[in-house]
Amino acid sequence: MADFRPGTPDQEEFLRELLGAGYLIESGVPGVYGRGEAFERVRLGFDAKVTAASEEESPEHMVFPPLLPRRQMEDVGYLQSFPHLACTVFSFDGDEEQAAEQEHRAAAHEDWSDFQEMTDLVLKPAACYPVYPAIAARGPLAPGGVLVDAGGTYVFRHEPSGDPARLQAFHQREIVRIGEPETVVEWRNRWRDRSLELLRSVGLDAVPDVASDPFFGRSGRLLARSQRAQELKFEVLVQIAGPEPTAVASFNYHQDHFSAVYGLEMAADDGGDTTAHTACLGFGLERITLALVRTHGLDQEGWPAAVLAELGI
Amino acid sequence: MADFRPGTPDQEEFLRELLGAGYLIESGVPGVYGRGEAFERVRLGFDAKVTAASEEESPEHMVFPPLLPRRQMEDVGYLQSFPHLACTVFSFDGDEEQAAEQEHRAAAHEDWSDFQEMTDLVLKPAACYPVYPAIAARGPLAPGGVLVDAGGTYVFRHEPSGDPARLQAFHQREIVRIGEPETVVEWRNRWRDRSLELLRSVGLDAVPDVASDPFFGRSGRLLARSQRAQELKFEVLVQIAGPEPTAVASFNYHQDHFSAVYGLEMAADDGGDTTAHTACLGFGLERITLALVRTHGLDQEGWPAAVLAELGI
Repeated sequence: MADFRPGTPDQEEFLRELLGAGYLIESGVPGVYGRGEAFERVRLGFDAKVTAASEEESPEHMVFPPLLPRRQMEDVGYLQSFPHLACTVFSFDGDEEQAAEQEHRAAAHEDWSDFQEMTDLVLKPAACYPVYPAIAARGPLAPGGVLVDAGGTYVFRHEPSGDPARLQAFHQREIVRIGEPETVVEWRNRWRDRSLELLRSVGLDAVPDVASDPFFGRSGRLLARSQRAQELKFEVLVQIAGPEPTAVASFNYHQDHFSAVYGLEMAADDGGDTTAHTACLGFGLERITLALVRTHGLDQEGWPAAVLAELGI
Repeated sequence: MADFRPGTPDQEEFLRELLGAGYLIESGVPGVYGRGEAFERVRLGFDAKVTAASEEESPEHMVFPPLLPRRQMEDVGYLQSFPHLACTVFSFDGDEEQAAEQEHRAAAHEDWSDFQEMTDLVLKPAACYPVYPAIAARGPLAPGGVLVDAGGTYVFRHEPSGDPARLQAFHQREIVRIGEPETVVEWRNRWRDRSLELLRSVGLDAVPDVASDPFFGRSGRLLARSQRAQELKFEVLVQIAGPEPTAVASFNYHQDHFSAVYGLEMAADDGGDTTAHTACLGFGLERITLALVRTHGLDQEGWPAAVLAELGI
């Protein structure tokens, strides 16, 4: 199992405050918490702000469950880039005798993994993944492509940590753009700027940055360098419980990565390249909630009236 | 892996209609579907009706993520009753060489399960499970106990099927009551009747029934018989795509099952038994949505105005 990464003293202290004030509820596993009313009120308030901004562009809505077909994880190369973060789903398919032995071991908190087999499902690592095959299944795209608001759904990263801003399960508020390369890049850059407005409107000191994904291993460092050099990924950072600011939103241009896997094409008739490009953006709703609590304090009644109004609280 | 259970011709036809009309979106794995706008509108409409009814009793709100500590699944005996439905979370903890071999096999769609190890997390099999330890952690309960609205969150059952009403991941709209035995039973029975009103108000032909859980194996049949004899579980049934009506809500009295595990106690001072009892109710939001579509038709514009008004559509 992945090593637990302790939080800094500031992070651990902030976690204790969040648990004490009922924002989060201890589960016994780091990075997995229940959420109290105060937390959900803020999370859903910011979620609604993103929805309102997204609706200006009249997206199509699609929502996908937390489970992704394992085949998709295999096809998109997730295990090359992020094997350390991937979560797979196993289950039991034995007889009554094996079930009894499994239960016997489990009740004694001994190892019962021998009785579990890999299923054809994994946990969804990013909210945009199921969108690409769903759109590809429709055939070539009309000029201008498509815009999909994929809502705010749970995604999963296996990285147990004492930092409350590093959860194993969190809501990614996701929007996906598929179309001509220049359409997609323009959309991605516009939303990076739009997100700064949204985050600053609720009093967060948000700054943009060129970023890279947490690729695995030595070869991952090369990938990260290339990703930065091409400015494929932007993030917006906010100070939560430090020491470094934390990414609360990301804006990703995938070029033809997903199109090559799923055959996403524009219905162009001029004989040129018809490969569609894709981009996505994700707001980390839990991190934004934590940033708001860290910025404005545990007591929501004391938050600036303008911030409460923006969040509909 | 559990055998795929094909749907009946009626069920498979209904699934094709749902996919064709954009209610559901194919993922490639049976029982796992994306949801289109028309589906979500109805699901959230009924969800809001439950919330409005629940608010009359001023519950506390707690929301839990799709992941449950494995320890809790071991402690509550889930693997004794439902080993065939449980889903566990595995992940990778190897080095770069192992990651490369895993990726190699995965890209070829070969077996890469050897590289996956059991984590300390499982998929949440029922929405009420995390509530009990969270309440127990507070110490003895004041007279009258507590009422927790746990929202509508994803739960997981490993039972791939061609019946669209049998999903591997679905939203359980859950409310939990913990208190004196008579308090808990009265609440459970009252909500069984309340649920009939809610379901009938949107035009569903809902009927109550004494029920049992789908316990595993031969010994499970005895458990099921005992559960029925004691009327520990009620369900509300609606005809969806048949042949039998489908349970769309359940009302469960656990007696001291969870209290014995987590030490839930009433702060009674009369020297009598202070063990708290628990009950929960769950509405299956996807099944209710499907029942509404089956009853009123694929075209929501043609639904009775009173039904649309009840759903806020």
